[in-house]
Amino acid sequence: MIYLDNAATTQMFEECAAVLQKYDRELYFNPSARYSGALAAQEAVKDARARVARRLGADASEIYFTASGSEADNMALLCSLRRKSGRVIVSAAEHSAVYKCACELERRGYEVVFAPVTPWGAVDTERFTELLTPDTVLVSVMHVSNETGAVNDIKTLAAAVKKRCPKALFHSDGVQAFCKEEINVHAAGIDMYSLSGHKIHAPKGVGALYVKKGVHLSPFVLGGGQEGGVRSATENVAGICALALACELAGERMRAAAPRLAKERAEAEEYLQKNIDDLVILSRRGACLDGFLTLAVKGVRGEVLVHMLDDEGIFVGTGSACSSHSADKRIAAALGVPDEYADGMLRLTCGDMNAEGDLLAACRALAAAVRKERKYIKR
Amino acid sequence: MIYLDNAATTQMFEECAAVLQKYDRELYFNPSARYSGALAAQEAVKDARARVARRLGADASEIYFTASGSEADNMALLCSLRRKSGRVIVSAAEHSAVYKCACELERRGYEVVFAPVTPWGAVDTERFTELLTPDTVLVSVMHVSNETGAVNDIKTLAAAVKKRCPKALFHSDGVQAFCKEEINVHAAGIDMYSLSGHKIHAPKGVGALYVKKGVHLSPFVLGGGQEGGVRSATENVAGICALALACELAGERMRAAAPRLAKERAEAEEYLQKNIDDLVILSRRGACLDGFLTLAVKGVRGEVLVHMLDDEGIFVGTGSACSSHSADKRIAAALGVPDEYADGMLRLTCGDMNAEGDLLAACRALAAAVRKERKYIKR
Repeated sequence: MIYLDNAATTQMFEECAAVLQKYDRELYFNPSARYSGALAAQEAVKDARARVARRLGADASEIYFTASGSEADNMALLCSLRRKSGRVIVSAAEHSAVYKCACELERRGYEVVFAPVTPWGAVDTERFTELLTPDTVLVSVMHVSNETGAVNDIKTLAAAVKKRCPKALFHSDGVQAFCKEEINVHAAGIDMYSLSGHKIHAPKGVGALYVKKGVHLSPFVLGGGQEGGVRSATENVAGICALALACELAGERMRAAAPRLAKERAEAEEYLQKNIDDLVILSRRGACLDGFLTLAVKGVRGEVLVHMLDDEGIFVGTGSACSSHSADKRIAAALGVPDEYADGMLRLTCGDMNAEGDLLAACRALAAAVRKERKYIKR
Repeated sequence: MIYLDNAATTQMFEECAAVLQKYDRELYFNPSARYSGALAAQEAVKDARARVARRLGADASEIYFTASGSEADNMALLCSLRRKSGRVIVSAAEHSAVYKCACELERRGYEVVFAPVTPWGAVDTERFTELLTPDTVLVSVMHVSNETGAVNDIKTLAAAVKKRCPKALFHSDGVQAFCKEEINVHAAGIDMYSLSGHKIHAPKGVGALYVKKGVHLSPFVLGGGQEGGVRSATENVAGICALALACELAGERMRAAAPRLAKERAEAEEYLQKNIDDLVILSRRGACLDGFLTLAVKGVRGEVLVHMLDDEGIFVGTGSACSSHSADKRIAAALGVPDEYADGMLRLTCGDMNAEGDLLAACRALAAAVRKERKYIKR
């Protein structure tokens, strides 16, 4: 099996399994209780909070654990606004979690503006800056695109926001960037940053939101008052501790894998350009993370190719795995993918757990599948 | 170690660890993707949904997975109302998740009324019925009290609601009842029912909400459209599958342990009545689940007793472990606990994983601790 859908989710690290075992089976106590076992669980959460904060250059008090990256995005967009109106700017290539929240804000009376993106999915800085008005209350630009791996220069974008609209909050969905692209949230001057565990080999069902000290969130889940009263529920101690370990291990392992991924990606692109006609590589090399190779093939349906590769034991994505078809269309439109290519989008995403040669093997199978399918269509 | 805080959380079943391993490490694929591995993950979630539904007497399509019982309560109270005003009735002994949502509804303009409870924490049916007005839009009464184990006859309460205010929705927080008290949500005529994994030996970070077919929920987490669009986020496949297994195993094991718990509880109560003066047993035998023994000691602080028992390796709770001190006070007031007893509340909760004799051993240690502390106070 060759797994090339690491942007959709990742295999959990073996080391995280031991953490789950420890906290679900041994130190399983409720951190809100008052006996020694419960205090140990509470300490474990506190320690995990500090470790996640360290990876972000944040203070532990600025980290709120959530159940997912989507939940973190929802909290950032829907719980942070004090003013009842004003402009909200999000990039045109945001993940559905941010996009749908922006639509909800529009319904609530805010003016929502979409910042256009380049063909590879990054925000166009100049056009972005033109959108910044004094009444802007919130800006959300993803750090790395989940569709193409395009890296946004969020430090520069945040600086532009703070200069033109000093009262606006700047949020970045860091789900695809976390542990792959370095970030220091304080130095970058951003107010909120979302991340998800299962994209970095932690279990599914845990995420976090960085919220800069001084930014007040209204509660998202009401109840016992956990997570500073913002998100009540018994803490997912095991998941939280596994997330803390995963972000340390993923940081190291992804850094170590980076040169190999870059080399393999370059070879793969060269191979594809030579062997598939009418192909557009959407992930622009240098501007996108090397783990991403998103492409569009003319006149062939991406879903068909996914199934053909599946038959060979190769798993690849078609656009965002966490979204519906309508999201795929929205993104294709934002990137300006021509109609005859839009149905043929594929996303091959490598991670630190891929073996050498996985990507090229998949590209060979892909080229063969495209040839076969085009021949079939012609008949 | 003797663990008597099973109402706060439980040790995860060993069998669930194997499920986590399987879905986090082997079938770790994103259920929204389109290759065979992803379809297998999708099937696993579908199967888990059917199994949880079966335990509730519901259809699979009526189950929404959440990250916690608190989240399920929030969805039920905050996402189900179509009318903008009207009466909302909740019991005076609800968990903070329901109580805080009721307060939020009051803030939004609903008239919130608290149904009084008996000294053991059950809703007083007669007084409850008097509160039912034609403009009632929502009623929420917990199935089993997390404080005392009091069982509410939700079938009778729901019938009264449907008779007097046919358009009102009936929600029940089943977090403490699930797998301990039999429930058939269709036969009981209730519209929504919350449950949590970690109270029944599943991992923390997973729960569910039953929502009767025809009841429409507005989205709680916006994004990719998972869980029928109500709660977007990549499914916590491993947690969901562990929850399905746990509810089957817990059902069997709790049923098997029930006679023993009943016998031990009766002995424990008798022992405490004989050996501690100025004691109130809040959990009334017969009216409360046998796993609960909540009591209040005059003139001694519950927290001090928790620490004294902790020194002996015995873990017991003081009121709801998922709530703050203010919640403890609210509940003590609802139960009518006299002031001089209110600070001395303790909650001993047994489960199917307790060894025979755990409860009596704890009661012996408790009686000794009370004697010691009272002697110390007198000096």
